[in-house]
Amino acid sequence: MIQAAETLLRESGLAGAGIKQLVARSGAPVGSVYHFFPGGKTQIVTETLRLHSGKAAKLFERAFNDAAVPLPARLRALFRMAADGFEAAGADKSCAVACVTLDLRASDHSLRKVCHASFNHWVDEITSHMPWPDVETRRSFATMVVLTLEGAFILARAQQSGDAFTTAGDWLARLAQSTLPVLTGDSHAPSRAARRRSRHRRRRSGPRTKEA
Amino acid sequence: MIQAAETLLRESGLAGAGIKQLVARSGAPVGSVYHFFPGGKTQIVTETLRLHSGKAAKLFERAFNDAAVPLPARLRALFRMAADGFEAAGADKSCAVACVTLDLRASDHSLRKVCHASFNHWVDEITSHMPWPDVETRRSFATMVVLTLEGAFILARAQQSGDAFTTAGDWLARLAQSTLPVLTGDSHAPSRAARRRSRHRRRRSGPRTKEA
Repeated sequence: MIQAAETLLRESGLAGAGIKQLVARSGAPVGSVYHFFPGGKTQIVTETLRLHSGKAAKLFERAFNDAAVPLPARLRALFRMAADGFEAAGADKSCAVACVTLDLRASDHSLRKVCHASFNHWVDEITSHMPWPDVETRRSFATMVVLTLEGAFILARAQQSGDAFTTAGDWLARLAQSTLPVLTGDSHAPSRAARRRSRHRRRRSGPRTKEA
Repeated sequence: MIQAAETLLRESGLAGAGIKQLVARSGAPVGSVYHFFPGGKTQIVTETLRLHSGKAAKLFERAFNDAAVPLPARLRALFRMAADGFEAAGADKSCAVACVTLDLRASDHSLRKVCHASFNHWVDEITSHMPWPDVETRRSFATMVVLTLEGAFILARAQQSGDAFTTAGDWLARLAQSTLPVLTGDSHAPSRAARRRSRHRRRRSGPRTKEA
């Protein structure tokens, strides 16, 4: 039932994931929906978003975990995976949390908290894998990754194509590369920069290991 | 009536902008809604999105038109304006096109076309002000600007704060600066880079004037 709710939320947001649609999509009788979710739609949406949020956090963990891979390459791979996943799923599903967020009414306090907590959770997860020495930059770049991914979903939905993800991933990779060339392995910078980078790398090898 | 529809779409997407809600919000009698919009909700949403899209395109035109201002500064200003506008409007309204896009069902062909055309229109407008010599880079960066702005709206809505816009604007400004330092005036790069930049600028002044 949660799986059906997740698909419905990813397709059409809050309005598309009513009890009626959930019954139609999951094949479960109405009675059992209220048996398992006495809180009705709000409870279903809350539990579905928590599940979706946890899955996405694990995905970010896997995407950024390997500190041996240069950050630009990890970013490109994440966004390429998002593009492939989006197209393989029919090019008509977005992030459930984003879909709900854009449907929130002023009175939806508890759902807004769930959405807010999901984004924070993802930013925290990505922040923990970022290589910048100061936490503000790590957190700020992680926020940029999350919002870029969400924005790509919007253009991709309208265009029914994953191209927006690869565009976003390429620019984020260039941004990471230019902001912290010290930590990238696939730079096209001239050799003077490369020598400078290699000096920095030696000097910074302690903190980098600690970061990873 | 279109103004009321625009606000409703920006608040809660497609589901929030039904005839009933429109009547309640605009104060217009039901009869006059069907008189002016015989095509019902789809017509109302289509015309509202076209209006919203045109307003946004003009906003992008104003934000990027002044080629004398370095691109990073124009990007920062656009996103700061978005942050201020978002908070001033109650921190509960997003982009109407994005809200509708994430609510689209497989059968909403005509609305999907309107959303797709809006994003294309914005990307075209921004592309025309970008300084890169090749059109692929100009168009790709313009796409990145649009999707970053849309993504910032999502995080801002969940957080009820404009901070996501300023974070996004700062990173985009750094991206523009690092990708095309030749055209930026507010670089913090060391003097050797500044000298190199000034040589490039002289060499490239022909095409730049043509671009602007």
